[in-house]
Amino acid sequence: MQVKDIFVSAPGKAILHGEHAVVHGKVALAVSLNLRAYLRLKVTTTGKVCINLPNIDTSQCWDLSELRRLIHNFHGKRDEAQRLDAELVKRLREFVGATNGNLDTCSMATLSFLYIYLSLFGSGELPSLTVTVWSELPTGAGLGSSAAYSVCLAAALLCTSGVIPAPLKEWDHTARWCQEDLELINSWAFQGEMIIHGNPSGVDNAVGTWVPRSTKVLVARVKDKINKFPSIMTPVLDSVDAISCTCEKVLSEMTCEPITGEHYNILEELIDINQHHLNVMGVGHPALDMLCRVTLAKGLHSKLTGAGGGGCGITLLRPETDSLVVQGTVQDLRDCGFDCWETSIGGPGVQQHSPLSVKEEILEILNRD
Amino acid sequence: MQVKDIFVSAPGKAILHGEHAVVHGKVALAVSLNLRAYLRLKVTTTGKVCINLPNIDTSQCWDLSELRRLIHNFHGKRDEAQRLDAELVKRLREFVGATNGNLDTCSMATLSFLYIYLSLFGSGELPSLTVTVWSELPTGAGLGSSAAYSVCLAAALLCTSGVIPAPLKEWDHTARWCQEDLELINSWAFQGEMIIHGNPSGVDNAVGTWVPRSTKVLVARVKDKINKFPSIMTPVLDSVDAISCTCEKVLSEMTCEPITGEHYNILEELIDINQHHLNVMGVGHPALDMLCRVTLAKGLHSKLTGAGGGGCGITLLRPETDSLVVQGTVQDLRDCGFDCWETSIGGPGVQQHSPLSVKEEILEILNRD
Repeated sequence: MQVKDIFVSAPGKAILHGEHAVVHGKVALAVSLNLRAYLRLKVTTTGKVCINLPNIDTSQCWDLSELRRLIHNFHGKRDEAQRLDAELVKRLREFVGATNGNLDTCSMATLSFLYIYLSLFGSGELPSLTVTVWSELPTGAGLGSSAAYSVCLAAALLCTSGVIPAPLKEWDHTARWCQEDLELINSWAFQGEMIIHGNPSGVDNAVGTWVPRSTKVLVARVKDKINKFPSIMTPVLDSVDAISCTCEKVLSEMTCEPITGEHYNILEELIDINQHHLNVMGVGHPALDMLCRVTLAKGLHSKLTGAGGGGCGITLLRPETDSLVVQGTVQDLRDCGFDCWETSIGGPGVQQHSPLSVKEEILEILNRD
Repeated sequence: MQVKDIFVSAPGKAILHGEHAVVHGKVALAVSLNLRAYLRLKVTTTGKVCINLPNIDTSQCWDLSELRRLIHNFHGKRDEAQRLDAELVKRLREFVGATNGNLDTCSMATLSFLYIYLSLFGSGELPSLTVTVWSELPTGAGLGSSAAYSVCLAAALLCTSGVIPAPLKEWDHTARWCQEDLELINSWAFQGEMIIHGNPSGVDNAVGTWVPRSTKVLVARVKDKINKFPSIMTPVLDSVDAISCTCEKVLSEMTCEPITGEHYNILEELIDINQHHLNVMGVGHPALDMLCRVTLAKGLHSKLTGAGGGGCGITLLRPETDSLVVQGTVQDLRDCGFDCWETSIGGPGVQQHSPLSVKEEILEILNRD
C-alpha cells in the first residue's frame, strides 16, 4: 500500500543509570521519555524532495533530477539495512557540503535523511515528497534527539516505499508496527545514526559538532582513569552496575506492586550514589553539581544523564511532590541558566498517528509548509 | 629514678583515607600531625593533686586524703595495663560527678587522669603533684586530641611512678622511650581512651557528648546502607581500601624518590575520589562539601577526615602552593565559619622535652599554675 501522507513519532530516551560504565561491559538502564520527535511525510507532485526542520531553522529542497545523478548504477536492497554504503555517504557529503570542516547539526540531519531516502528509493523511481520534523527534545543533551529523528525518518520512508505497511486503521488514533517491521525500522534508523554519530567511512568526528561536548573525550577520560587506578576504579564500575540492576528491579516492582514511598526513597538514594560515582569517573561538571544542590534544596534528587561533562541532568519528581515545589525548582534552575523539561518515563516507541492524535500545536508546525 | 618535673608531648593524628571502611575490615591510613598536646607534670609538696586544662577552662585540685579513700584495698599492677577496673571507674564517676547525665569533656578528661593516677600510685604512697596539659589540637574534630592527651598522661605518670625511666639526658632537647616502654605507655593511654570513648562498664555513651557529633550514629548509618545495598556498597568499600593502599604507596615513594608534581596530582585525585565515596556512605555534610568547593576554587583538594557528618576536613597543600593562596583560602574558609590549622604530617610520637625545647608560648601556658 502506497501512502500519500503519514504522521509518525518516536520518543527520546534518558539513561537512568550506567552511562560510561556500559562502555566497560556493565549494565546501563535507559528508558523512553514522553518527549517525542514528530514527523509528517507528504507525497507531492512538485518534482522536488524537501526537508523542513523548524527546530534548527533548516528548510531545503532538491530537484529529483539532482538527486538521481547521485545514484547512477545504484542497487540498494530496501528490505534489509546493510553496512553503510561508503561510496554513497561520500557523494552525499560532497553534495550537501558536509566535508570534514563542516559537520554541523543541519548538515548531519540532511545527510541522514538523503541517505535513507536514496537507499530506499534509489533502485526505482524517486518520489517527490516533503518531510517535516518537529521535536520536543533538546538537541545535543544526550536525550536521544537524533535517534528519535532517525527512527521517524526510517519509519515514514519505509512506509512510503511500501517495504512495510502503514499500521494505522481508519478508526485508530495511533498504531504500532509488528515486531518484524520494527526491527527493519530500527536497522534503517541505525544507518541514520551511524551517519550522524560516526562510522568507519570517516564521519565519526561529526560527534564533536553534533553535540556541544565531545562524548569521545569523556569516554576516554573514564578509560584513562581506570587504567591509572584499576584497583580503585573497577569496584566503582561494579557498584554502578549494581545500581542499574537495583533500579531496574525497583522499577519493575513498581509496575506490579502497590507503589510505596520506600520505592521512591530507594530511587533517590540510587540517584545520589550514582551522581557521586560519575564524579569519581571524572565526567561531572560544576554546573551539574549546582543542579543537584539547587534541586536538593527543594528536596529533589538529581544526577547527570548521558555523557556528562555538562549536558543534561535528571531530577526525580515523586507523585506527591507539590506542583508549587516543581514550579519553584524550575524557576530556581532557570535563574541559574538551566533549561527544564518535565516528562514521564516509559512512553510508547515509534508509532503512526492519525492527524487527530497529534497535539494541536505540533500539528500546526508540521502542516506549516 | 624519681622525676620531679617532666615535660612530654604527643601528636594528634589525621585519617588520610579509610575512615568508616576500617570498621568493615578495610585498610585505613592514619598519620601523625605536627599539632601536639603538651603536658607538664610537677611534683609538689602541697598535699594535693591538681589538674589544669586551660583549653577547656578546667582547673581542679583534690586533697590526697580524699583520693586515698577511693582506693582502699587497692592492688593494681603498675607494670601492665589490664582490663579497666570497673569498680574503680564506678567510684571515680561518682567522685567527679560523671554520671550518665554528665559526660562532658571536662568530666571525661578528669576521670581519665584520676584513673591512671590512682592505678599507678594506688598500691603505694600517693604523690602530691600538678599536671597541666595544653593542646594545639581542636577537641572533638577527629584529630586525636583525646588520644594525645591520654598518651601524655600515661607517659608522664609512668615516669613519675618510676615504672619507666625518663629518657632525656642532660644534653638532649627531646628524647623518646625504648620500644618496650612505648608499649607500656600505649597500653595505659588506651585505658584512658577507654574511659573517654567507652568501655564495657557503662561509659560508652560518653562519646555522644565528648564529640559534637555521634560517631556511633555515623558508623551505624554506614552499616545500615551496606545492609540495604550490599551489591552497591561493598565495591565502594573495596575502592576505599585501594585508595588507602595507593596513598600509602605514593607516600612511601615520596620518602625515597625525588618528589614530583605527579605524586601530588595522585594524592589530590585520591582525596577527590574518597570524598565522593564518603558522601556515598552517607557520612558527608553540606558544610564539608562547601569546604571542598571553597578550597577547590583556589585549586586545593579537600576531603572530610574522621567520623564525618560535620567535624573536620583536610586540605592538601602542595610545596609550590603560594603562601598568598594559602592565606586567601584560610580567609575564605574563616568567612564561611570554619577554623583552620596548618600542619605537616609525620611528626614524632610521644617524647620527653627539656623545657628549652618547648615552644615559648606553650611553656608560658604550662608554667602558669
